[in-house]
Amino acid sequence: MDILKENERIDELHRNNYVIIQDAKRFCFGIDAVLLADFAKAKKNDIVFDIGTGTGIIPILMSAKTEAKKFFAIDIQKESVDMAKRSVSLNNLDDKIEIFHLDIKNVFEKFEKNSINVVTSNPPYMNVGGGIVNKYDAKAIARHEIFCNLEDIIKVTALLLKPNGKFYMVHRPNRLCDIIYTLRQYKLEPKTIRFVQPFEDKEPNMVLIESIKNSKPFLKILPNLIVYNKNKQYTDEINKIYYH
Amino acid sequence: MDILKENERIDELHRNNYVIIQDAKRFCFGIDAVLLADFAKAKKNDIVFDIGTGTGIIPILMSAKTEAKKFFAIDIQKESVDMAKRSVSLNNLDDKIEIFHLDIKNVFEKFEKNSINVVTSNPPYMNVGGGIVNKYDAKAIARHEIFCNLEDIIKVTALLLKPNGKFYMVHRPNRLCDIIYTLRQYKLEPKTIRFVQPFEDKEPNMVLIESIKNSKPFLKILPNLIVYNKNKQYTDEINKIYYH
Repeated sequence: MDILKENERIDELHRNNYVIIQDAKRFCFGIDAVLLADFAKAKKNDIVFDIGTGTGIIPILMSAKTEAKKFFAIDIQKESVDMAKRSVSLNNLDDKIEIFHLDIKNVFEKFEKNSINVVTSNPPYMNVGGGIVNKYDAKAIARHEIFCNLEDIIKVTALLLKPNGKFYMVHRPNRLCDIIYTLRQYKLEPKTIRFVQPFEDKEPNMVLIESIKNSKPFLKILPNLIVYNKNKQYTDEINKIYYH
Repeated sequence: MDILKENERIDELHRNNYVIIQDAKRFCFGIDAVLLADFAKAKKNDIVFDIGTGTGIIPILMSAKTEAKKFFAIDIQKESVDMAKRSVSLNNLDDKIEIFHLDIKNVFEKFEKNSINVVTSNPPYMNVGGGIVNKYDAKAIARHEIFCNLEDIIKVTALLLKPNGKFYMVHRPNRLCDIIYTLRQYKLEPKTIRFVQPFEDKEPNMVLIESIKNSKPFLKILPNLIVYNKNKQYTDEINKIYYH
Protein backbone atom coordinates (compact mmCIF):
# COMPACT_ATOMS: atom_id res chain seq x y z
CA MET A 1 0.00 0.00 0.00
CA ASP A 2 1.03 3.61 -0.42
CA ILE A 3 2.47 5.17 2.70
CA LEU A 4 0.75 8.51 2.14
CA LYS A 5 -2.73 9.32 0.88
CA GLU A 6 -3.86 12.61 -0.60
CA ASN A 7 -3.31 15.65 1.68
CA GLU A 8 -1.24 13.63 4.14
CA ARG A 9 2.26 14.56 5.27
CA ILE A 10 4.95 13.04 7.44
CA ASP A 11 6.05 14.99 10.55
CA GLU A 12 9.05 14.31 12.76
CA LEU A 13 8.57 13.61 16.45
CA HIS A 14 12.13 14.44 17.61
CA ARG A 15 12.33 11.25 19.60
CA ASN A 16 13.88 7.92 18.50
CA ASN A 17 13.62 9.34 14.95
CA TYR A 18 9.94 8.52 15.08
CA VAL A 19 7.58 10.17 12.62
CA ILE A 20 3.83 10.54 12.30
CA ILE A 21 1.45 10.83 9.39
CA GLN A 22 -1.00 13.72 9.59
CA ASP A 23 -3.66 15.29 7.40
CA ALA A 24 -4.24 18.95 8.19
CA LYS A 25 -7.74 18.70 6.72
CA ARG A 26 -8.61 16.13 9.34
CA PHE A 27 -7.01 16.65 12.75
CA CYS A 28 -3.40 17.26 13.72
CA PHE A 29 -2.19 16.49 17.21
CA GLY A 30 -1.57 19.46 19.43
CA ILE A 31 0.58 20.31 22.42
CA ASP A 32 -2.06 18.72 24.67
CA ALA A 33 -1.22 15.26 23.28
CA VAL A 34 2.50 15.89 23.65
CA LEU A 35 2.08 17.00 27.26
CA LEU A 36 -0.16 14.05 28.08
CA ALA A 37 2.35 11.58 26.61
CA ASP A 38 4.97 13.11 28.92
CA PHE A 39 2.76 13.39 32.02
CA ALA A 40 1.57 9.78 31.70
CA LYS A 41 3.85 7.22 33.32
CA ALA A 42 4.11 3.53 32.49
CA LYS A 43 6.35 0.97 34.14
CA LYS A 44 8.36 -1.80 32.55
CA ASN A 45 6.05 -4.46 31.10
CA ASP A 46 2.91 -2.39 31.57
CA ILE A 47 0.04 -2.71 29.14
CA VAL A 48 -1.21 0.71 28.05
CA PHE A 49 -4.54 1.54 26.42
CA ASP A 50 -5.25 4.79 24.57
CA ILE A 51 -8.88 5.83 24.05
CA GLY A 52 -9.59 7.97 20.96
CA THR A 53 -6.04 7.77 19.66
CA GLY A 54 -6.52 9.81 16.45
CA THR A 55 -3.13 9.88 14.70
CA GLY A 56 -1.73 7.43 17.27
CA ILE A 57 0.47 10.18 18.71
CA ILE A 58 0.17 9.15 22.36
CA PRO A 59 1.17 5.47 22.07
CA ILE A 60 3.92 6.36 19.58
CA LEU A 61 5.44 8.98 21.89
CA MET A 62 4.97 6.83 24.99
CA SER A 63 6.63 3.86 23.30
CA ALA A 64 9.72 6.08 23.03
CA LYS A 65 9.47 7.48 26.56
CA THR A 66 8.56 4.41 28.62
CA GLU A 67 9.40 0.73 28.94
CA ALA A 68 5.79 -0.39 28.62
CA LYS A 69 5.44 -3.77 26.93
CA LYS A 70 2.39 -3.18 24.80
CA PHE A 71 0.12 -0.37 23.63
CA PHE A 72 -3.44 -0.88 22.50
CA ALA A 73 -5.32 2.06 21.03
CA ILE A 74 -8.82 2.56 19.66
CA ASP A 75 -10.55 5.18 17.59
CA ILE A 76 -14.05 5.42 16.16
CA GLN A 77 -12.87 7.04 12.92
CA LYS A 78 -11.84 4.46 10.31
CA GLU A 79 -9.60 6.88 8.39
CA SER A 80 -7.75 7.87 11.59
CA VAL A 81 -7.15 4.22 12.45
CA ASP A 82 -5.85 3.54 8.95
CA MET A 83 -3.49 6.51 9.16
CA ALA A 84 -2.33 5.65 12.70
CA LYS A 85 -1.57 2.06 11.62
CA ARG A 86 0.60 3.33 8.79
CA SER A 87 2.47 5.59 11.26
CA VAL A 88 3.07 2.61 13.54
CA SER A 89 4.47 0.62 10.60
CA LEU A 90 6.67 3.49 9.45
CA ASN A 91 8.29 3.45 12.90
CA ASN A 92 8.61 -0.36 12.97
CA LEU A 93 6.41 -0.50 16.04
CA ASP A 94 3.89 -3.09 14.83
CA ASP A 95 4.93 -5.55 17.55
CA LYS A 96 4.45 -2.96 20.25
CA ILE A 97 1.44 -0.87 19.20
CA GLU A 98 -1.90 -2.21 17.95
CA ILE A 99 -4.58 0.18 16.74
CA PHE A 100 -8.22 -0.92 16.49
CA HIS A 101 -11.17 0.63 14.70
CA LEU A 102 -13.56 0.25 17.60
CA ASP A 103 -16.36 2.17 19.27
CA ILE A 104 -15.66 2.64 22.98
CA LYS A 105 -19.07 1.12 23.69
CA ASN A 106 -17.94 -2.20 22.18
CA VAL A 107 -14.53 -2.33 23.79
CA PHE A 108 -15.26 -5.43 25.86
CA GLU A 109 -15.92 -7.44 22.71
CA LYS A 110 -12.15 -7.36 22.18
CA PHE A 111 -10.62 -6.63 25.61
CA GLU A 112 -10.89 -8.16 29.06
CA LYS A 113 -12.00 -6.21 32.10
CA ASN A 114 -9.33 -5.58 34.76
CA SER A 115 -6.56 -6.24 32.24
CA ILE A 116 -4.85 -2.89 31.67
CA ASN A 117 -2.18 -1.11 33.76
CA VAL A 118 -2.44 2.36 32.27
CA VAL A 119 -5.19 4.10 30.29
CA THR A 120 -4.56 7.37 28.47
CA SER A 121 -6.99 9.70 26.76
CA ASN A 122 -6.98 13.06 25.04
CA PRO A 123 -10.75 13.06 24.55
CA PRO A 124 -13.11 15.49 22.81
CA TYR A 125 -13.24 18.52 25.11
CA MET A 126 -16.53 20.09 24.23
CA ASN A 127 -20.05 19.28 25.32
CA VAL A 128 -22.25 18.97 22.26
CA GLY A 129 -24.84 21.11 24.06
CA GLY A 130 -27.20 22.97 21.80
CA GLY A 131 -24.69 23.98 19.13
CA ILE A 132 -24.81 22.60 15.62
CA VAL A 133 -22.00 20.16 15.03
CA ASN A 134 -21.35 18.24 11.82
CA LYS A 135 -21.17 14.61 12.89
CA TYR A 136 -19.51 13.61 9.63
CA ASP A 137 -16.67 16.08 10.09
CA ALA A 138 -13.45 14.47 11.35
CA LYS A 139 -12.33 17.55 13.31
CA ALA A 140 -15.73 17.92 14.96
CA ILE A 141 -15.69 14.28 16.05
CA ALA A 142 -12.25 14.71 17.60
CA ARG A 143 -13.24 17.90 19.42
CA HIS A 144 -16.88 17.44 20.43
CA GLU A 145 -18.56 14.76 22.48
CA ILE A 146 -20.49 13.39 19.52
CA PHE A 147 -19.78 9.68 19.70
CA CYS A 148 -18.64 9.45 23.30
CA ASN A 149 -18.73 11.77 26.27
CA LEU A 150 -16.61 12.13 29.38
CA GLU A 151 -18.66 9.62 31.33
CA ASP A 152 -18.41 6.98 28.57
CA ILE A 153 -14.63 7.24 28.68
CA ILE A 154 -14.37 7.18 32.46
CA LYS A 155 -16.80 4.26 32.78
CA VAL A 156 -14.88 2.12 30.28
CA THR A 157 -11.54 3.13 31.83
CA ALA A 158 -12.69 2.05 35.29
CA LEU A 159 -13.64 -1.36 33.89
CA LEU A 160 -10.50 -1.81 31.78
CA LEU A 161 -8.03 -1.00 34.55
CA LYS A 162 -6.62 -3.47 37.01
CA PRO A 163 -6.93 -2.47 40.70
CA ASN A 164 -4.45 0.40 41.30
CA GLY A 165 -4.25 0.92 37.54
CA LYS A 166 -3.64 4.49 36.43
CA PHE A 167 -5.62 6.79 34.17
CA TYR A 168 -4.04 9.85 32.54
CA MET A 169 -6.17 12.44 30.82
CA VAL A 170 -5.75 15.93 29.41
CA HIS A 171 -8.77 18.21 29.31
CA ARG A 172 -10.00 21.78 29.70
CA PRO A 173 -10.03 23.42 33.16
CA ASN A 174 -13.62 24.58 32.67
CA ARG A 175 -14.67 20.90 32.74
CA LEU A 176 -12.73 20.13 35.94
CA CYS A 177 -15.79 19.70 38.15
CA ASP A 178 -17.42 17.33 35.64
CA ILE A 179 -14.14 15.40 35.49
CA ILE A 180 -13.51 15.10 39.22
CA TYR A 181 -17.13 14.28 40.01
CA THR A 182 -17.36 11.57 37.35
CA LEU A 183 -13.94 10.06 38.12
CA ARG A 184 -14.89 9.63 41.75
CA GLN A 185 -18.28 8.17 40.88
CA TYR A 186 -16.41 5.40 39.07
CA LYS A 187 -13.80 4.95 41.85
CA LEU A 188 -11.00 6.51 39.87
CA GLU A 189 -9.52 8.85 42.48
CA PRO A 190 -7.71 11.91 41.11
CA LYS A 191 -4.24 11.89 42.71
CA THR A 192 -2.18 14.42 40.73
CA ILE A 193 -3.29 17.46 38.78
CA ARG A 194 -1.14 19.80 36.74
CA PHE A 195 -2.56 22.90 35.13
CA VAL A 196 -0.96 24.24 31.98
CA GLN A 197 -1.01 27.97 31.28
CA PRO A 198 0.08 29.67 28.05
CA PHE A 199 2.02 32.51 29.75
CA GLU A 200 3.26 33.27 33.25
CA ASP A 201 0.44 35.65 34.14
CA LYS A 202 -2.40 33.90 32.32
CA GLU A 203 -4.99 31.50 33.60
CA PRO A 204 -4.60 27.79 32.72
CA ASN A 205 -6.15 26.48 29.49
CA MET A 206 -5.32 22.79 29.91
CA VAL A 207 -5.30 20.36 32.81
CA LEU A 208 -3.45 17.05 33.15
CA ILE A 209 -4.98 14.57 35.59
CA GLU A 210 -3.63 11.32 37.02
CA SER A 211 -6.19 9.07 38.71
CA ILE A 212 -5.69 5.73 40.43
CA LYS A 213 -8.36 3.05 40.57
CA ASN A 214 -9.66 2.42 44.10
CA SER A 215 -7.12 4.78 45.69
CA LYS A 216 -7.71 6.89 48.80
CA PRO A 217 -8.48 10.62 48.45
CA PHE A 218 -5.42 12.84 48.61
CA LEU A 219 -4.76 15.19 45.73
CA LYS A 220 -1.40 16.67 44.84
CA ILE A 221 -1.49 19.82 42.68
CA LEU A 222 1.83 20.34 40.94
CA PRO A 223 3.25 23.78 40.10
CA ASN A 224 1.64 25.02 36.89
CA LEU A 225 3.38 24.24 33.62
CA ILE A 226 4.00 27.42 31.60
CA VAL A 227 4.21 27.06 27.82
CA TYR A 228 5.72 30.35 26.61
CA ASN A 229 8.14 32.78 28.24
CA LYS A 230 7.87 36.56 27.94
CA ASN A 231 9.58 36.47 24.52
CA LYS A 232 6.89 34.09 23.24
CA GLN A 233 9.42 31.24 23.02
CA TYR A 234 8.79 27.82 24.56
CA THR A 235 9.95 27.65 28.18
CA ASP A 236 12.83 25.32 29.03
CA GLU A 237 10.43 22.77 30.43
CA ILE A 238 8.35 22.65 27.25
CA ASN A 239 11.47 22.41 25.08
CA LYS A 240 12.61 19.49 27.20
CA ILE A 241 9.26 17.74 26.77
CA TYR A 242 9.33 18.20 22.98
CA TYR A 243 12.98 17.69 22.16
CA HIS A 244 14.96 15.93 24.90
CA MET B 1 -16.96 44.09 81.03
CA ASP B 2 -13.22 44.18 80.44
CA ILE B 3 -12.29 44.49 76.80
CA LEU B 4 -9.35 42.09 77.09
CA LYS B 5 -9.01 38.85 79.02
CA GLU B 6 -5.77 37.18 80.04
CA ASN B 7 -3.38 36.45 77.13
CA GLU B 8 -5.49 38.45 74.68
CA ARG B 9 -4.15 41.27 72.52
CA ILE B 10 -5.58 43.78 70.07
CA ASP B 11 -4.32 43.68 66.48
CA GLU B 12 -4.89 46.26 63.75
CA LEU B 13 -6.61 45.26 60.53
CA HIS B 14 -5.36 48.16 58.35
CA ARG B 15 -8.86 48.80 57.06
CA ASN B 16 -11.37 51.37 58.38
CA ASN B 17 -9.17 51.46 61.52
CA TYR B 18 -10.76 48.19 62.51
CA VAL B 19 -9.07 46.01 65.10
CA ILE B 20 -9.44 42.44 66.27
CA ILE B 21 -8.92 40.69 69.60
CA GLN B 22 -6.78 37.57 69.44
CA ASP B 23 -5.28 35.07 71.87
CA ALA B 24 -2.15 33.39 70.54
CA LYS B 25 -2.75 30.45 72.87
CA ARG B 26 -6.06 29.81 71.14
CA PHE B 27 -6.09 30.49 67.41
CA CYS B 28 -5.00 33.54 65.45
CA PHE B 29 -6.38 34.18 62.00
CA GLY B 30 -4.02 33.52 59.11
CA ILE B 31 -3.55 34.73 55.57
CA ASP B 32 -6.20 32.22 54.45
CA ALA B 33 -8.92 34.22 56.25
CA VAL B 34 -7.63 37.49 54.81
CA LEU B 35 -7.61 36.07 51.28
CA LEU B 36 -11.08 34.58 51.69
CA ALA B 37 -12.49 37.92 52.93
CA ASP B 38 -11.09 39.52 49.77
CA PHE B 39 -12.10 36.73 47.34
CA ALA B 40 -15.68 36.64 48.68
CA LYS B 41 -18.03 39.14 47.08
CA ALA B 42 -21.23 40.57 48.55
CA LYS B 43 -23.59 43.02 46.94
CA LYS B 44 -25.35 45.98 48.48
CA ASN B 45 -27.98 44.82 50.99
CA ASP B 46 -26.82 41.19 50.92
CA ILE B 47 -27.11 39.05 54.03
CA VAL B 48 -23.87 37.19 54.69
CA PHE B 49 -23.37 34.15 56.92
CA ASP B 50 -19.96 32.96 58.19
CA ILE B 51 -19.63 29.38 59.40
CA GLY B 52 -16.97 28.76 62.07
CA THR B 53 -16.07 32.40 62.44
CA GLY B 54 -13.41 32.05 65.18
CA THR B 55 -12.16 35.57 65.94
CA GLY B 56 -14.83 37.03 63.64
CA ILE B 57 -12.16 38.10 61.17
CA ILE B 58 -14.14 37.36 58.01
CA PRO B 59 -17.32 39.34 58.76
CA ILE B 60 -15.25 42.19 60.23
CA LEU B 61 -13.05 42.46 57.13
CA MET B 62 -15.98 41.98 54.75
CA SER B 63 -17.98 44.67 56.53
CA ALA B 64 -15.18 47.05 55.53
CA LYS B 65 -14.82 45.74 51.98
CA THR B 66 -18.45 45.29 50.90
CA GLU B 67 -21.82 47.01 51.12
CA ALA B 68 -23.56 43.96 52.58
CA LYS B 69 -26.38 44.87 54.94
CA LYS B 70 -25.92 42.27 57.65
CA PHE B 71 -23.45 39.62 58.74
CA PHE B 72 -24.39 36.62 60.83
CA ALA B 73 -21.64 34.34 62.11
CA ILE B 74 -21.56 31.19 64.20
CA ASP B 75 -18.93 29.25 66.08
CA ILE B 76 -19.07 26.18 68.28
CA GLN B 77 -16.45 27.51 70.71
CA LYS B 78 -17.98 29.69 73.43
CA GLU B 79 -14.72 31.52 74.17
CA SER B 80 -14.24 32.39 70.49
CA VAL B 81 -17.77 33.75 70.25
CA ASP B 82 -17.21 35.86 73.37
CA MET B 83 -13.97 37.24 71.94
CA ALA B 84 -15.46 37.87 68.48
CA LYS B 85 -18.39 39.75 70.05
CA ARG B 86 -15.99 42.03 71.90
CA SER B 87 -14.12 42.70 68.63
CA VAL B 88 -17.39 43.59 66.93
CA SER B 89 -18.21 46.04 69.74
CA LEU B 90 -14.72 47.57 69.68
CA ASN B 91 -15.32 48.42 66.00
CA ASN B 92 -18.84 49.74 66.64
CA LEU B 93 -20.25 47.09 64.33
CA ASP B 94 -22.92 45.65 66.66
CA ASP B 95 -25.71 46.74 64.31
CA LYS B 96 -24.08 45.05 61.35
CA ILE B 97 -22.48 41.86 62.70
CA GLU B 98 -24.13 39.33 65.00
CA ILE B 99 -22.14 36.41 66.36
CA PHE B 100 -23.88 33.32 67.75
CA HIS B 101 -22.60 30.48 69.88
CA LEU B 102 -24.20 27.74 67.83
CA ASP B 103 -23.43 24.24 66.60
CA ILE B 104 -23.80 24.06 62.81
CA LYS B 105 -26.14 21.10 63.34
CA ASN B 106 -28.62 23.36 65.13
CA VAL B 107 -28.45 26.29 62.76
CA PHE B 108 -32.07 26.01 61.63
CA GLU B 109 -33.28 26.57 65.17
CA LYS B 110 -32.25 30.21 64.69
CA PHE B 111 -32.13 30.76 60.89
CA GLU B 112 -34.54 30.23 58.02
CA LYS B 113 -33.73 28.05 55.04
CA ASN B 114 -33.25 29.87 51.71
CA SER B 115 -32.64 33.16 53.52
CA ILE B 116 -28.97 33.99 52.93
CA ASN B 117 -27.27 35.62 49.91
CA VAL B 118 -23.66 34.74 50.67
CA VAL B 119 -22.10 32.07 52.90
CA THR B 120 -18.40 32.16 53.79
CA SER B 121 -16.29 29.57 55.57
CA ASN B 122 -12.67 29.01 56.51
CA PRO B 123 -13.35 25.57 57.96
CA PRO B 124 -11.12 23.05 59.72
CA TYR B 125 -8.88 21.65 56.97
CA MET B 126 -7.88 18.30 58.33
CA ASN B 127 -9.68 15.00 58.38
CA VAL B 128 -9.65 13.61 61.90
CA GLY B 129 -8.67 10.24 60.44
CA GLY B 130 -6.84 7.92 62.80
CA GLY B 131 -4.65 10.54 64.49
CA ILE B 132 -5.10 11.50 68.12
CA VAL B 133 -6.62 14.95 68.44
CA ASN B 134 -7.44 16.72 71.69
CA LYS B 135 -11.08 17.67 71.36
CA TYR B 136 -10.82 20.15 74.23
CA ASP B 137 -7.99 22.06 72.54
CA ALA B 138 -9.16 25.29 70.86
CA LYS B 139 -6.54 25.12 68.10
CA ALA B 140 -7.33 21.50 67.32
CA ILE B 141 -11.04 22.29 67.03
CA ALA B 142 -10.30 25.10 64.59
CA ARG B 143 -7.99 22.94 62.47
CA HIS B 144 -9.46 19.43 62.55
CA GLU B 145 -12.89 18.17 61.58
CA ILE B 146 -13.82 17.29 65.16
CA PHE B 147 -17.22 18.94 65.55
CA CYS B 148 -18.12 19.33 61.90
CA ASN B 149 -16.71 18.06 58.64
CA LEU B 150 -16.73 19.34 55.09
CA GLU B 151 -20.03 17.67 54.27
CA ASP B 152 -21.76 19.17 57.35
CA ILE B 153 -20.73 22.65 56.22
CA ILE B 154 -21.71 22.15 52.59
CA LYS B 155 -25.06 20.59 53.50
CA VAL B 156 -26.02 23.47 55.79
CA THR B 157 -24.75 26.04 53.27
CA ALA B 158 -26.92 24.56 50.52
CA LEU B 159 -29.97 24.86 52.78
CA LEU B 160 -29.17 28.36 54.05
CA LEU B 161 -28.61 29.92 50.63
CA LYS B 162 -31.26 31.42 48.44
CA PRO B 163 -31.34 30.12 44.84
CA ASN B 164 -28.28 31.56 43.05
CA GLY B 165 -26.77 32.37 46.44
CA LYS B 166 -22.99 32.20 46.63
CA PHE B 167 -20.66 30.18 48.80
CA TYR B 168 -17.03 31.17 49.32
CA MET B 169 -14.59 28.81 50.97
CA VAL B 170 -10.85 28.55 51.49
CA HIS B 171 -9.31 25.12 51.92
CA ARG B 172 -6.30 22.92 51.14
CA PRO B 173 -5.67 21.76 47.54
CA ASN B 174 -5.21 18.17 48.70
CA ARG B 175 -8.92 18.14 49.65
CA LEU B 176 -10.06 19.54 46.28
CA CYS B 177 -11.69 16.33 45.07
CA ASP B 178 -13.63 15.94 48.33
CA ILE B 179 -14.70 19.56 48.02
CA ILE B 180 -15.83 19.49 44.38
CA TYR B 181 -17.56 16.14 44.73
CA THR B 182 -19.47 17.18 47.86
CA LEU B 183 -20.38 20.65 46.55
CA ARG B 184 -21.92 19.15 43.44
CA GLN B 185 -23.78 16.51 45.44
CA TYR B 186 -25.52 19.39 47.22
CA LYS B 187 -26.13 21.41 44.02
CA LEU B 188 -23.55 24.04 44.86
CA GLU B 189 -21.72 24.26 41.54
CA PRO B 190 -18.09 25.44 41.74
CA LYS B 191 -17.78 28.38 39.34
CA THR B 192 -14.45 30.04 40.17
CA ILE B 193 -11.31 28.58 41.69
CA ARG B 194 -8.12 30.40 42.58
CA PHE B 195 -5.08 28.54 43.85
CA VAL B 196 -2.66 30.33 46.15
CA GLN B 197 1.02 29.41 46.07
CA PRO B 198 3.71 30.64 48.50
CA PHE B 199 6.34 31.35 45.82
CA GLU B 200 6.42 31.63 42.04
CA ASP B 201 7.83 28.14 41.45
CA LYS B 202 6.05 26.33 44.26
CA GLU B 203 2.89 24.27 44.21
CA PRO B 204 -0.28 25.80 45.68
CA ASN B 205 -1.01 25.33 49.40
CA MET B 206 -4.41 27.02 49.52
CA VAL B 207 -7.46 27.11 47.27
CA LEU B 208 -10.27 29.67 47.13
CA ILE B 209 -13.57 28.40 45.72
CA GLU B 210 -16.71 30.26 44.68
CA SER B 211 -19.82 28.11 44.20
CA ILE B 212 -23.31 29.13 43.12
CA LYS B 213 -26.44 27.31 44.22
CA ASN B 214 -28.22 25.54 41.34
CA SER B 215 -25.86 26.98 38.72
CA LYS B 216 -24.81 25.24 35.50
CA PRO B 217 -21.36 23.58 35.28
CA PHE B 218 -18.65 25.84 33.89
CA LEU B 219 -15.57 26.40 35.96
CA LYS B 220 -13.22 29.36 35.64
CA ILE B 221 -9.74 28.86 37.06
CA LEU B 222 -8.07 32.20 37.76
CA PRO B 223 -4.32 32.80 37.48
CA ASN B 224 -2.65 31.59 40.68
CA LEU B 225 -2.16 34.09 43.47
CA ILE B 226 1.48 34.22 44.59
CA VAL B 227 2.17 35.27 48.19
CA TYR B 228 5.92 36.06 48.27
CA ASN B 229 8.30 37.37 45.64
CA LYS B 230 11.88 36.15 45.23
CA ASN B 231 13.05 38.47 48.04
CA LYS B 232 10.56 36.84 50.42
CA GLN B 233 8.46 40.02 50.54
CA TYR B 234 4.73 40.05 49.94
CA THR B 235 3.87 40.46 46.26
CA ASP B 236 2.06 43.63 45.18
CA GLU B 237 -1.22 41.76 44.98
CA ILE B 238 -0.94 40.47 48.55
CA ASN B 239 0.06 43.91 49.84
CA LYS B 240 -2.99 45.33 48.12
CA ILE B 241 -5.26 42.75 49.76
CA TYR B 242 -3.82 43.45 53.21
CA TYR B 243 -3.29 47.18 53.16
CA HIS B 244 -5.21 49.01 50.41
